[in-house]
Amino acid sequence: MSSTILTPSDELKGQKFIITGGGIGGASGALALALRGADVTLYERAPEFKEVGAGLQIGPHGVKMLEKWGLKERVIEAGYLPERMQFRDAVTAEPILTMDFGEDFQAHYGGQYLVIHRSDLLAILVEAAQEAGATLHNGVQVTGADTHEDGVTVHIEHLAEGTTEDVEGDILVAFDGTHSVFRKEIVQDEPVPSAYVAYRGTSTLPDDPDMKDLKDVVGYIGPRCHFIQYPLRGGELLNQVAVFQSPRYLKALTEGTEVPEDWGNNEEFKNAFDHTNEFVQGRLGSMWLNTWWQMADREPLDNWVVSDRIIVMGDAAHPPLQYLASGAVMAMEDAECLALYASQAAAKGELNWGEVLADVSAERAPRCSRIQTTGRFWGELWHVDGLSRLIRNETFRQAERSGWYPYVDWLWDYDADRREYLKDPSKGELPEALKEWEYNIHKVITQREEGRSAEELTI
Amino acid sequence: MSSTILTPSDELKGQKFIITGGGIGGASGALALALRGADVTLYERAPEFKEVGAGLQIGPHGVKMLEKWGLKERVIEAGYLPERMQFRDAVTAEPILTMDFGEDFQAHYGGQYLVIHRSDLLAILVEAAQEAGATLHNGVQVTGADTHEDGVTVHIEHLAEGTTEDVEGDILVAFDGTHSVFRKEIVQDEPVPSAYVAYRGTSTLPDDPDMKDLKDVVGYIGPRCHFIQYPLRGGELLNQVAVFQSPRYLKALTEGTEVPEDWGNNEEFKNAFDHTNEFVQGRLGSMWLNTWWQMADREPLDNWVVSDRIIVMGDAAHPPLQYLASGAVMAMEDAECLALYASQAAAKGELNWGEVLADVSAERAPRCSRIQTTGRFWGELWHVDGLSRLIRNETFRQAERSGWYPYVDWLWDYDADRREYLKDPSKGELPEALKEWEYNIHKVITQREEGRSAEELTI
Repeated sequence: MSSTILTPSDELKGQKFIITGGGIGGASGALALALRGADVTLYERAPEFKEVGAGLQIGPHGVKMLEKWGLKERVIEAGYLPERMQFRDAVTAEPILTMDFGEDFQAHYGGQYLVIHRSDLLAILVEAAQEAGATLHNGVQVTGADTHEDGVTVHIEHLAEGTTEDVEGDILVAFDGTHSVFRKEIVQDEPVPSAYVAYRGTSTLPDDPDMKDLKDVVGYIGPRCHFIQYPLRGGELLNQVAVFQSPRYLKALTEGTEVPEDWGNNEEFKNAFDHTNEFVQGRLGSMWLNTWWQMADREPLDNWVVSDRIIVMGDAAHPPLQYLASGAVMAMEDAECLALYASQAAAKGELNWGEVLADVSAERAPRCSRIQTTGRFWGELWHVDGLSRLIRNETFRQAERSGWYPYVDWLWDYDADRREYLKDPSKGELPEALKEWEYNIHKVITQREEGRSAEELTI
Repeated sequence: MSSTILTPSDELKGQKFIITGGGIGGASGALALALRGADVTLYERAPEFKEVGAGLQIGPHGVKMLEKWGLKERVIEAGYLPERMQFRDAVTAEPILTMDFGEDFQAHYGGQYLVIHRSDLLAILVEAAQEAGATLHNGVQVTGADTHEDGVTVHIEHLAEGTTEDVEGDILVAFDGTHSVFRKEIVQDEPVPSAYVAYRGTSTLPDDPDMKDLKDVVGYIGPRCHFIQYPLRGGELLNQVAVFQSPRYLKALTEGTEVPEDWGNNEEFKNAFDHTNEFVQGRLGSMWLNTWWQMADREPLDNWVVSDRIIVMGDAAHPPLQYLASGAVMAMEDAECLALYASQAAAKGELNWGEVLADVSAERAPRCSRIQTTGRFWGELWHVDGLSRLIRNETFRQAERSGWYPYVDWLWDYDADRREYLKDPSKGELPEALKEWEYNIHKVITQREEGRSAEELTI
């Protein structure tokens, strides 16, 4: 079998890229571009490269990309290859869908399924980008940029020194996160809170009598909440996430009153899992209580191009809800897509930056929009109650019996190199069933705008 | 292939059966018992044998029974053998599940799927019962009965003459419908209205340009309504049923105010299908407007035995909602089960009526309870909205792909002769998923009893 590892090239030699944002997306961008010989400078505002949160999941399409970048062994060593993903009903603990990540899966998708600590993945990407020749700076805030005929003038601020500077580049790639400076130049939107909040926690796994045999990603999905467990760091660490709908956020939203800043606080967490099975309830004691994540996304964006020399990527372009576990991989795909299209154009001697960025946006925006919207749907599907929950469980059981690949192929069987969405823009369209679906948060907002009373609102 | 037609016998010769109620159940009882040589007298209150309504559906288990009674050719000639049952989403008209009633189906269930006009089926059963030697009287009301050591004294009233009489029998079988006189001796309950109302209509089929190719049972299922079409009488007649949730009934129920007697009236019908596709809306003009059926059932009953000599059967024992299209077949099964168990006991010389009736009740009550409860569930599943509707549609599509027989085997693959529920009482239990489900009407009543306000009630 021929290696699928990318041979470093100099196709982008002489092209100066400035990246703002040193998260997983920015570091991936620095790596992917540097591997093509580009001159890459990355600026990260924080004093060190660090990710908040704990575990993240990388589907086979992401693992293939890490393999291409020469990092497969390193991420597998640092992370964990779960044997299966188990969905269980959180009320009864009954398994309703088990997705096997064994040989058949790996043959079908050409990659493994990986879970890894966010910080570990970031550290590997940062190190690899530096090895590939990228220059990464901490403590620098990119505050703006001016596009001109030959490139882009980027305004930066050295935060510790309090000094500002202008740097020149051919391209500015804004991986500057959900509160992006550059997204504002495309759209002036606000995050869309989902009314759900996440508590996380990690603990040592081998000492945990109930958990020591855990080899899977296990998700207990239940009315208005869910709970996820999986091993990290070769099985040394247990990662747990408990997510629930905040009654106080919901109340404020439906009544049109001020949203309390601390929605989803410990008080709410205390009762949020009362209707779940005893096992889940018994696990909640080990979650961190000092921090919780109020979960939000933004509306999908159909264009990421700020100018012929500036593009937004990663969470700056498409912050998702976390239900499809695709945020990190989307950002990695963005990075690889940009590096790929640029190097391919350069190799042909046709490097026109306006065209490259337009192509990248046309390939990536519809895919990421679809992931964002499907993520919202997937989340609501996890959290249904009553009759809907019973139908959902049956749908999951049927998917296990009849084969679940068809539901996931669009997500996990993707390669930007195939220019799938460019060739067939209809791939970006939602399936019919999803077109008819309306996000609960949208429904509430619409109903409020129509002047309906709080009693009539449902979520 | 050996004939599956029952050879008339004299196993019950000398046993005098009195049947009250001359609907499909009573007529089936008269036939099944007369075929075993019993002395059968049936009393029907109405001046003629007549069924209200129009078409009814007979699953393969029912067709097998009609075959056993020697009526297969007659019912097929009078009715119609649909090629398939199509479920479509009423909003989009998209087919979501098509159940083929062809060779594979017939081999699996040992019978065809039949639809027939209620009056036609009743006429055939009445005629066959008379041919078999049963005596059927109209205009006679059975008002009560006294059990004694050797049998039962039945009190009857000749309605035209206004005279009363006592008649003696060995057994009284009360097929006297949902407002049964004898059910009251077991339980003093009331019908449970479902908040749904049915409009029906028949019209000539061959002249109907949109419908002349109809060869299937087609059900459009949609939020809070459904619409069903199928041919009758060899394709000469079109049968249509339009069912919807009555907003006025619902309002009265949730607000605890008086229920208007005419709930589901024409005014409500006018707007009830506004959210369905144009085809369905265009068909509603041909429904009868003078009569509508307020749909109700009763709580399942776990014992049908009034005394060692009296049993309730058919709608008197288990009036269902119509969603599983099983009301008529259940009554036919009851009839055959009684005749079968009695004749088998008699053939062995062990005819103890107390034991026979207890066995019949033990075999039939759990099955019919399960059909009643599953019918409620099935109806709610048809009428869901929003996300639930999309999941339901997917579940239906999956069932078509992976095979839907497993969902229906319990219903359509049944023969009282196998004494399935007697041998294994757990067969009468609901599947786990259904145990967790709660009927909407029950939820509303519970919530009202708990004193919740109307705004908080959902249905």
